[in-house]
Amino acid sequence: MRHMALPEAVVEFLQKPNLAVLGTVSPAGRPQVTPVWFLYEHGRILVNTSKGRVKLRNVEANPAVTVTVIDGDDPYRYVQIQGTVVEFDRKNGDRDINRLSQRYRGRPYKYPPTDAPENRVSLLIKPLRAHTMGFR
Amino acid sequence: MRHMALPEAVVEFLQKPNLAVLGTVSPAGRPQVTPVWFLYEHGRILVNTSKGRVKLRNVEANPAVTVTVIDGDDPYRYVQIQGTVVEFDRKNGDRDINRLSQRYRGRPYKYPPTDAPENRVSLLIKPLRAHTMGFR
Repeated sequence: MRHMALPEAVVEFLQKPNLAVLGTVSPAGRPQVTPVWFLYEHGRILVNTSKGRVKLRNVEANPAVTVTVIDGDDPYRYVQIQGTVVEFDRKNGDRDINRLSQRYRGRPYKYPPTDAPENRVSLLIKPLRAHTMGFR
Repeated sequence: MRHMALPEAVVEFLQKPNLAVLGTVSPAGRPQVTPVWFLYEHGRILVNTSKGRVKLRNVEANPAVTVTVIDGDDPYRYVQIQGTVVEFDRKNGDRDINRLSQRYRGRPYKYPPTDAPENRVSLLIKPLRAHTMGFR
């Protein structure tokens, strides 16, 4: 398995619970940009979404995504990762939103009334290339 | 002129110098997501870029963009604006990067060696609709 698409400094940066901004493209060719929680493991970027969301419909039609992670302490330091959604994991969607909630908030995920565990889907994103700004 | 595409609370939020994240789509259908400075005036979102940048080539081919502005004090508060680039202003590119630099850094823009005033281009974006998160 090749896990080396990302330079070491980027991989290290991705350990921190900064918000990511997920870019997707609609079937009509419009961009969609949404702040999301993420997790980097096994060479993949994991984000989690829910049935019915625009970004899920977008990546089902076109798996090309961009994940931009901005340093919460310095907005001029960020990494922009071009990638492809290589897996839709519905089996672990609920497990993963709870892992993300632990990472970002230190507690299990609180479902709003409009959402439910069986709706959650994890997107596994394979990084293709990264562009950094403000890294030394 | 119709300037009412954006709700008042959003227009007020856009006065603050938070970073925006500009989403564009490449001719190959890949999203591009880049943090940018912005300014909202006369019902348009102004961002500024430079000749040769990927985002400029993208919007020349496909003017559909998304501007997502995240509150620097609360990353769970943001507005996502779908819009269209309706004007490329090359005449005021240098003036506008200096206005943006004043807004964000309180001083004129410092050109890096790889850039020059005549390369700057302002993109004027007409908002089509806005989606807010964390607004009351």
